[in-house]
Amino acid sequence: MRFFSDNAAAVHPRVLAALGEANTLDTAYDGDRWSKALDGQLGALFETAVRVLWVPTGTAANCLALGALCPPWGGVICHRDAHIQNDEAGAPEFYTHGAKLMPGEGAGAKLTPDAIAAVADAVVNDIHRVQPHAVSITNATEYGLVYRPDEVAAIGELCRARGLGLHMDGARFANAVAFTGASPAELTWRAGVDALSFGFVKNGGMSAEALVFFRPELAAETLRRRKRAGLLLSKGRYLAAQILAMVKDDLWLGCGRAANARAATLAQAGASRLIHSVEANEVFLHATTEEAAALRAQGFDFYDWAPGEIRLVTAWDSDEEAVARLARAIGAL
Amino acid sequence: MRFFSDNAAAVHPRVLAALGEANTLDTAYDGDRWSKALDGQLGALFETAVRVLWVPTGTAANCLALGALCPPWGGVICHRDAHIQNDEAGAPEFYTHGAKLMPGEGAGAKLTPDAIAAVADAVVNDIHRVQPHAVSITNATEYGLVYRPDEVAAIGELCRARGLGLHMDGARFANAVAFTGASPAELTWRAGVDALSFGFVKNGGMSAEALVFFRPELAAETLRRRKRAGLLLSKGRYLAAQILAMVKDDLWLGCGRAANARAATLAQAGASRLIHSVEANEVFLHATTEEAAALRAQGFDFYDWAPGEIRLVTAWDSDEEAVARLARAIGAL
Amino acid sequence: MRFFSDNAAAVHPRVLAALGEANTLDTAYDGDRWSKALDGQLGALFETAVRVLWVPTGTAANCLALGALCPPWGGVICHRDAHIQNDEAGAPEFYTHGAKLMPGEGAGAKLTPDAIAAVADAVVNDIHRVQPHAVSITNATEYGLVYRPDEVAAIGELCRARGLGLHMDGARFANAVAFTGASPAELTWRAGVDALSFGFVKNGGMSAEALVFFRPELAAETLRRRKRAGLLLSKGRYLAAQILAMVKDDLWLGCGRAANARAATLAQAGASRLIHSVEANEVFLHATTEEAAALRAQGFDFYDWAPGEIRLVTAWDSDEEAVARLARAIGAL
Amino acid sequence: MRFFSDNAAAVHPRVLAALGEANTLDTAYDGDRWSKALDGQLGALFETAVRVLWVPTGTAANCLALGALCPPWGGVICHRDAHIQNDEAGAPEFYTHGAKLMPGEGAGAKLTPDAIAAVADAVVNDIHRVQPHAVSITNATEYGLVYRPDEVAAIGELCRARGLGLHMDGARFANAVAFTGASPAELTWRAGVDALSFGFVKNGGMSAEALVFFRPELAAETLRRRKRAGLLLSKGRYLAAQILAMVKDDLWLGCGRAANARAATLAQAGASRLIHSVEANEVFLHATTEEAAALRAQGFDFYDWAPGEIRLVTAWDSDEEAVARLARAIGAL
Repeated sequence: MRFFSDNAAAVHPRVLAALGEANTLDTAYDGDRWSKALDGQLGALFETAVRVLWVPTGTAANCLALGALCPPWGGVICHRDAHIQNDEAGAPEFYTHGAKLMPGEGAGAKLTPDAIAAVADAVVNDIHRVQPHAVSITNATEYGLVYRPDEVAAIGELCRARGLGLHMDGARFANAVAFTGASPAELTWRAGVDALSFGFVKNGGMSAEALVFFRPELAAETLRRRKRAGLLLSKGRYLAAQILAMVKDDLWLGCGRAANARAATLAQAGASRLIHSVEANEVFLHATTEEAAALRAQGFDFYDWAPGEIRLVTAWDSDEEAVARLARAIGAL
Repeated sequence: MRFFSDNAAAVHPRVLAALGEANTLDTAYDGDRWSKALDGQLGALFETAVRVLWVPTGTAANCLALGALCPPWGGVICHRDAHIQNDEAGAPEFYTHGAKLMPGEGAGAKLTPDAIAAVADAVVNDIHRVQPHAVSITNATEYGLVYRPDEVAAIGELCRARGLGLHMDGARFANAVAFTGASPAELTWRAGVDALSFGFVKNGGMSAEALVFFRPELAAETLRRRKRAGLLLSKGRYLAAQILAMVKDDLWLGCGRAANARAATLAQAGASRLIHSVEANEVFLHATTEEAAALRAQGFDFYDWAPGEIRLVTAWDSDEEAVARLARAIGAL
Repeated sequence: MRFFSDNAAAVHPRVLAALGEANTLDTAYDGDRWSKALDGQLGALFETAVRVLWVPTGTAANCLALGALCPPWGGVICHRDAHIQNDEAGAPEFYTHGAKLMPGEGAGAKLTPDAIAAVADAVVNDIHRVQPHAVSITNATEYGLVYRPDEVAAIGELCRARGLGLHMDGARFANAVAFTGASPAELTWRAGVDALSFGFVKNGGMSAEALVFFRPELAAETLRRRKRAGLLLSKGRYLAAQILAMVKDDLWLGCGRAANARAATLAQAGASRLIHSVEANEVFLHATTEEAAALRAQGFDFYDWAPGEIRLVTAWDSDEEAVARLARAIGAL
Repeated sequence: MRFFSDNAAAVHPRVLAALGEANTLDTAYDGDRWSKALDGQLGALFETAVRVLWVPTGTAANCLALGALCPPWGGVICHRDAHIQNDEAGAPEFYTHGAKLMPGEGAGAKLTPDAIAAVADAVVNDIHRVQPHAVSITNATEYGLVYRPDEVAAIGELCRARGLGLHMDGARFANAVAFTGASPAELTWRAGVDALSFGFVKNGGMSAEALVFFRPELAAETLRRRKRAGLLLSKGRYLAAQILAMVKDDLWLGCGRAANARAATLAQAGASRLIHSVEANEVFLHATTEEAAALRAQGFDFYDWAPGEIRLVTAWDSDEEAVARLARAIGAL
């Protein structure tokens, strides 16, 4: 019974079926009809004109976005616990040719306008310092917290005022939308987001994420960068088909809701142990070494986050019976 | 009836089935049992210890290999018509942090030891010139010619003598093995190849190529580079499963043979028009604009290579009836 | 008696004196009064508004210019014998983050619009090919030939028509101006040049070259790149002072004329042996191994360019008596 | 009366004289006899075999050293107030092709083994995190504190134990040696330092710093990197001559002592206002806006470091009378 991470979950049957349906000859790269449908389908979802590039990983989506928003000699303000800072092995620096990540503070890996301003204001505006060019936030955050539309909008306003681009790492965007009830548009471009890494792999996809540009002019260069990074798969239709399957009938949102609901069940069971509010599909609990061992002895698999802390992650396919058993086990600790 | 390129062919049913079989929860990235089986399975195929990394594109495989064999201040000797020189949008320069491709000459995109030595000898060995560090050859070449084991070995010997690494771009390695009848070992490490981009996507795969290191010590850094390039898919098992399916019962070789046989049929029909020998799955023919139009009018799709030249490419799934009709149409020109 | 290269000549006494005059406390970096005078002084020389950055080497000037004119995923068309292609050890690739040099052909290292168009036209305009973004020409060329104003203008016109930036490597710009009698303006911005590496080190300077932007908007980013490359000397006044001393009373032009005149003397003596016209300060002669040895036996030092070819380079400070002796020796071969 | 920074001080007359003495024709780049003397002269000073490269800036020295000690996918632990982190505009990232600086804590910009271990220990050793490869310390620090030999040795021991390279930014190395009375060897390689940026520009030089490798095998690649960065001046003898003049008769040490002594005078006068111990040539004082204005009204120029804090920097050539007047003015506040 695995609560280790959502990134190893199974692929949704409808996504798998879409691969089979795409298994006919078509044009290579992104000239096929699936790839060509992305702008329209995601434009409808986001209620605005967008340019969409499929990529095989969230890291690729994030780092292509950063490359579009920040020159090699610039900086990107992000949370010190951000995935781009800690879990991408220097990919942001690789893709931007050496831009500098500028870590900010905030509970639960969440940035605020004040936290961002604090980072930016500490940078003397002279030729000797790397100047910030963009902000990157993660929604839902690495600790399972969710930015509400007005929180994103406040950051977006600061970015516009200071001439900073705004990127959203949406590896768990579905969970954030599910939690807030906001529309995808409200959580992104209406709040000032320029580029979104729209994640599917943690949410039922296999190998396709969507990089969504709300400023379509950013796409042209990024198409070249994607190719130059070895990311332009010749059979792109199999990536596009995954995304289209996830978008169709809001499968992505249903999967996000399912994961959130299972996390809520665990959060309720461990209410007295919660380290962070549970707003998405991650549950961080205080648990002693013995307690963690006791849970493992019952067959539950999860991540030891820090001494005395464990992380439980649910996914679209977390078995409801397993969730219920884990909830009971937590309650019984 | 499409003879445009092998890179848009359908996915082999056994590969597609393998995706379904891999659709269970397992460890993320390359910790799963499919990924872990690659070294062993490909080691058996190549009759030596290898380290294998899955990647989603041939460009990624090539450029990670070049990065392992050449520092940023070095050069890579390749044919002037090589894919890495002309068709990867600067990915070699991106992955190597600015190494220089040093193009050499040779009929049919084939390099010889003499051609390589000519490039290397033209470089004064001083601090002002970029010095060559590696050689990259493509087998089968971009024009459908095949290096025999002794031809590779002659190049390998030159590389060893001069301290150059040797990479083989095997996007069509299956076609080369099928043509020569040589073993995979004879065409690679026994002939001095250090790293092979073993292609599957043009040959029945969907989104997985294998980067095979015959010098296993090159793998450690490359694992970090793969991650840093945004290429470490979290559900790597779906890539590994494709490769394992292709390797099982020599499916890859059967597909390569099938494509070659279809090309041979076309070559025979167009024998008087051949620009290059047909040794793999590509057929380059002299054809006037009117002749090309006449073929298109009969429903055949292909690439106008240059004025008066057309390229026909077969694949594992080229319809035999369509091939026969095209052969007749060529003969009737 | 050294005719090996102009790059090791002595520093002109007026330049050395300028260093002493600058040896008072002032503001660091480029905030001092010498540095601040550059835009005005060179603007007067070029009869237009310019932005000028001092740098310590011609390679730095060239590569900062290329970085300003070409993105990492672009290409720069240059002659296959260009300094940036052969003698800068990959600095163009380093500074541009991996842009591709695209070598063209032409006698005496000179490009023509046709030669440039031939390179550009060979690049299919698709996502798989690196696209040209700029052209770089060297005046005087690496073989001592000089582009006339109308020749530069023809290239400038082609660049404008195709949206390509135009850089001039003017390591020997003084020699080119001296030869043509054209004004600096006519040879550069009036002919479409966007950025000039204005060389002084080969012409009496010590350690300062001027990167001159005729499109002033290119300077802002380049100021950051210069710092980021470790090229912003804290005591920049000693570089600016060198440039100002060279510009004052057209010292640069006088030095260029002197070097050209000495080369003309040698060219006259070796008229029957000339490989290239002698238009600047370089003389390439046919000479057998025995003839070269005979010259060396008389105390002359020079470069063996290729089998049967020698290169003689004069400088502002070439001893006239030594030049006369060498001329006699050549005539006596 | 300027106490703004040591980086704009005048050039020592003996250095200027050395430029005149070097003003004869010699071989270009680093083939001249001055450049060739560096290894020997600095080897004698450091009492061990060294490889020495001249470069025009401290940033270049630092970043070439980091490039030699850390791959693009690695990290460099430094103090969060380090020059490489804050004042080099991303040059470390440029030269290393995107390595990550990992800032640590410590009073007065000084790192301890514990502080370094804290940074390193926070990095999970997996494929997703950038791993530290080197440590960089500044001696004297950016706040004018000095690492003693045993303090460096403790860091050196930690580095050896963990396989980390150790770089010392010695922009003010003379001040550190002058303060400690230790030998250059004791403060560097005997304490585990692999590479030293030996600064002269703040201490009487004009445009030459020495990058000193105590692991000579690091030099070969760095020679190529120096050229590739546009840092290989063709008239290198004028840089080498500066360094030789500074080393001769320990001019560098005398200049460092002179600067330290003047700072000590100021420190004594402002003893009750000191923010940091004054061990080198920088004096950080608490001073209100009004007090700072009062000093400026008397003709003293300095840097407002932070609200309520000012920085006074002395140099080898700080006028003693001006120092005395400033000391009195501080005492009278």
